[in-house]
Amino acid sequence: MSTAKPKVLITGSGGLIGGVLVAHLGDRYTFSGLDRRPSEGGASNIPTSVGDVADLASIRKAFDGMDAVVHLAANADMHQAWDSALNNGIVATHNVFEAARQAGAKRIVYASSNHAVGMFELDQPYRRIRKGDYAGLDPVKLKRIDHNVAIRPDGYYGVSKAFGEAIGAYYAENHGMEIACLRIGTVNRHNDPTHDVRQLATWCSHRDLAQLIDRCLSAKNLKFDIFYGVSNNKWHFWDIEHARKTIGYQPQDDAETYRSRLRQRTGA
Amino acid sequence: MSTAKPKVLITGSGGLIGGVLVAHLGDRYTFSGLDRRPSEGGASNIPTSVGDVADLASIRKAFDGMDAVVHLAANADMHQAWDSALNNGIVATHNVFEAARQAGAKRIVYASSNHAVGMFELDQPYRRIRKGDYAGLDPVKLKRIDHNVAIRPDGYYGVSKAFGEAIGAYYAENHGMEIACLRIGTVNRHNDPTHDVRQLATWCSHRDLAQLIDRCLSAKNLKFDIFYGVSNNKWHFWDIEHARKTIGYQPQDDAETYRSRLRQRTGA
Repeated sequence: MSTAKPKVLITGSGGLIGGVLVAHLGDRYTFSGLDRRPSEGGASNIPTSVGDVADLASIRKAFDGMDAVVHLAANADMHQAWDSALNNGIVATHNVFEAARQAGAKRIVYASSNHAVGMFELDQPYRRIRKGDYAGLDPVKLKRIDHNVAIRPDGYYGVSKAFGEAIGAYYAENHGMEIACLRIGTVNRHNDPTHDVRQLATWCSHRDLAQLIDRCLSAKNLKFDIFYGVSNNKWHFWDIEHARKTIGYQPQDDAETYRSRLRQRTGA
Repeated sequence: MSTAKPKVLITGSGGLIGGVLVAHLGDRYTFSGLDRRPSEGGASNIPTSVGDVADLASIRKAFDGMDAVVHLAANADMHQAWDSALNNGIVATHNVFEAARQAGAKRIVYASSNHAVGMFELDQPYRRIRKGDYAGLDPVKLKRIDHNVAIRPDGYYGVSKAFGEAIGAYYAENHGMEIACLRIGTVNRHNDPTHDVRQLATWCSHRDLAQLIDRCLSAKNLKFDIFYGVSNNKWHFWDIEHARKTIGYQPQDDAETYRSRLRQRTGA
């Protein structure tokens, strides 16, 4: 990348995370958006192309001149039907990676999901932690779910994200691209983990996610890698250390500080 | 399964491996076939339904009454274009798994491929072994590529096979199915490894592949697993031990015994 601000295309820019990126990183990158509709969300103040990621021809031009891509466009419903996962996940992600390759945009930050490995949290001790039952557990000694675990999707959404990681590895190794897959935890509009006790483990704050994506966009040593997008929560069960060591991710937030508010809200 | 011979549907039954299965295991299983055309190959002596695995409705009935499925149908060209991998690999494999689920055929043996992890063999020492350069290497001490390695596809074909493994894990864990993914090495019509020095490492003989699939169909302890389909070649670089220990695979053949014939043929 040149010394000017890198040009970064955000797919699905009208969604929650698109807005988070523009708000937190708008001074470090020159963002443009790509969405099915002109943006009305938080990213509405960036130039936005209209196209459907399921149709390569409709999105190809938006990649011209870009240094990097943050691929967020997806149906985020973990219970989605196969046809949606196929079109909005699998076909779309191929199209985004292929458009980036054709345009010479080398670096991609891909919004994968914890649901690619979602069956792990139904095993102990994670199954208890997600319910808020910590009896006898030491968060310091917890063996966490890391980037080396087997693929264990909990739905077609997770299957489509596992696919995205696989085709990402292909593009990285066979076309010299630089691809970070982020298995993002719980990011919500209100930016707190007070709606569900599971979020005390899985929450990723807006500023932590923005920092993680910033690190992925700027890391010198990225070829292909997988990181978890999660804050430094006391009871986080997805690994943070790999992102700390590899790209210098230093999460600032801890869901634990919201525990009393969660309790007030849910009785947990 | 009942004590009668298990009923097993072979997709892509008209291909090479379909014929191998019927020839080697026809006395142990009651096979039927499913193919785009009425079979003319080695599996032509079994009842065969005509349908396209890319079209779920056209294949669904063929699964009724089956105990198990061996899913072989695919475009086996490792250099195939995206559209072929999408339709003949991804869409087709979802359809086969979903048809099996709907029909109550619990067990699936899925023909994955070494190409799901094909980039490993371009790393040393495998890169030298595949070229027949064994200087300083000890085959006994060789660290082999096993079922726990990361996904590293070498083309869209390998990407489609990595997808098949991911959706297999989903069906196994979320629908109580029993799924073995076989990363099959080099199986050829002439059933010898004399055409290319790489095959001294990657060859899988007909009888070894038939035995491996038999073990997968009959194993008591299968939930979801990944095995390599390779003979006990002196220079095999894909792991056999996991299949030995887990399902009792005992390969009989070793490509090394063909070395002199390979040399005559290729000058290697």
